[in-house]
Amino acid sequence: MIDAAIVKKIDKIIRENKKFVITTHLNPDGDALGSEVAMAEYLRYLNKTVHIVNISETPKNYSFLDENQEFIHFDKEEHEQLLRSADVFIVLDISDWGRLQDIGKIMNESQAPAICIDHHHVNYQFADVDLIREEASSTGELLYEFLEKVKFPFTLRAAIALYTCILTDTGSFRFSNTTSRTHLVASKLLKYDIDTKEIYSLVYEQNSPAKMALLGEALINLHYEFEGKLAWFALTKEMFDKHHASVWDTEGFPEIPRTIEGVEVSLMFTEIDEADIKISLRSKGRIVINQVAQKFGGGGHHFAAGAQVEIPLNELVPQVLEELGRVM
Amino acid sequence: MIDAAIVKKIDKIIRENKKFVITTHLNPDGDALGSEVAMAEYLRYLNKTVHIVNISETPKNYSFLDENQEFIHFDKEEHEQLLRSADVFIVLDISDWGRLQDIGKIMNESQAPAICIDHHHVNYQFADVDLIREEASSTGELLYEFLEKVKFPFTLRAAIALYTCILTDTGSFRFSNTTSRTHLVASKLLKYDIDTKEIYSLVYEQNSPAKMALLGEALINLHYEFEGKLAWFALTKEMFDKHHASVWDTEGFPEIPRTIEGVEVSLMFTEIDEADIKISLRSKGRIVINQVAQKFGGGGHHFAAGAQVEIPLNELVPQVLEELGRVM
Repeated sequence: MIDAAIVKKIDKIIRENKKFVITTHLNPDGDALGSEVAMAEYLRYLNKTVHIVNISETPKNYSFLDENQEFIHFDKEEHEQLLRSADVFIVLDISDWGRLQDIGKIMNESQAPAICIDHHHVNYQFADVDLIREEASSTGELLYEFLEKVKFPFTLRAAIALYTCILTDTGSFRFSNTTSRTHLVASKLLKYDIDTKEIYSLVYEQNSPAKMALLGEALINLHYEFEGKLAWFALTKEMFDKHHASVWDTEGFPEIPRTIEGVEVSLMFTEIDEADIKISLRSKGRIVINQVAQKFGGGGHHFAAGAQVEIPLNELVPQVLEELGRVM
Repeated sequence: MIDAAIVKKIDKIIRENKKFVITTHLNPDGDALGSEVAMAEYLRYLNKTVHIVNISETPKNYSFLDENQEFIHFDKEEHEQLLRSADVFIVLDISDWGRLQDIGKIMNESQAPAICIDHHHVNYQFADVDLIREEASSTGELLYEFLEKVKFPFTLRAAIALYTCILTDTGSFRFSNTTSRTHLVASKLLKYDIDTKEIYSLVYEQNSPAKMALLGEALINLHYEFEGKLAWFALTKEMFDKHHASVWDTEGFPEIPRTIEGVEVSLMFTEIDEADIKISLRSKGRIVINQVAQKFGGGGHHFAAGAQVEIPLNELVPQVLEELGRVM
């Protein structure tokens, strides 16, 4: 359960102030953007002035969250004054000053208090008031509980935004962060008139034709090693050029070979340039692979890791396979 | 809510009898098999004798539900006597005698009462007692409510089975059958120690290498028509032979082109034999396509339909495209 004292402290700051700036991390995802919208809805319900200012642009598949076109893509010259005049900053889905970049710097210099709501692990005080709960599937799940506690009569837009947070951060309720509580919050949100099929389609069914062609090439060029326990493929610069595809089009690809029977680890090479290769490793959950990524100067979690290496593809492949041989 | 009188009637039959046969439809899915397991768990809790007898084999990706290897694949000679000696039949996830085949015939001839629990639409009395609720996402969701009403202290195995029902019949909580109630039931089930990530992996991450290669070929051979609103591909007999793939390996393929930006309808041709072609149509939800399937002697729902046609592929493709032209 969330700490009642912190909820009270945050709501006191909110009620005593007028001008709010909400922000989130670089390259925002569904949880980041959805949380911003839900918080903005609450602040507007309290008749506050709200600006959502992000360091990155909004990815196209989340533009449906921005029906009022209020997401501001931060430009120092244009928006520094807006930030400096804020009474309160609300930072969502992030508790790391670095990933806030220029916005973080201005916040740090400002006298205005910062409130942080997040579900990522941190071992330091980040903002003036931190509401952090790692057990929450998503910032959206945690924010729902906060908003329920402060008796916000959820708007449909807020419900859609929070549902999007949970849907995306749990991979449609299938990642291990999905708990009984996560489903309970989803159950409450679905009491509003949310078109879940439409949201799913808007978020996940926006693949480019280039992405499909690139995936096709990847799948017909799958290699199997270690008695089928490893499946790997490489996306070459030539393949990107041929299909007019970009690195953005590879989203989700590293997971795909892992869905093959018997495959425990999947490995993807992305040739950004001749001697600039991204390595992406995914494990089904029995073989730990982040130390392999570390050998190549990268890192990550036990079952999802990566690195970026300045070695040509044909030299790199045998090196990575050799390292993987030690853990397979 | 489910009808208390029907619940009472069913539980009376269960309590007054000893020998039970549980069955489900041809080619059982996760909802069918999971419901069978959960019902068997309840009956065993009441010290009944239970046999699960199915007309089809259990698909490999659901073998985890059958840890006791109790699913009997019906053989008339071997199991007719077992069926004829049942006190009660419980039919799950199906309310159509035809799809019960030989098992349905024996049940029909038997004096033993039949109980049906299902979430599919029917407009006739099927069994002696029918518990049917179309609003339920799955038979598992409905069965959960029944078992809760009769105060079954759910076993972990029953919880896993019912979670599998809901997960699979809602496509991981994303189909439009997913309601607030569905999430509420999932929330209650997750209070048991269910490893949801493991279940997801067992059900969905058992793709064959042949399937991946076939999908690769399909994706590099996508064709776009009607200004990108239609994407189609054909799987030829030659492709199946080349990759040692079977028609089973195409599960899920019809949905894939629909995930492309701008694509409203996806169309897949599967060449079973030279003049034996399966047509699969899927719509994003704006264009109704079942009348196109009907033109070719098939049918289906508004947004998911199909047909099987005895016309060679090269002749069939332009005919189907022409028909689609009328609705696009």
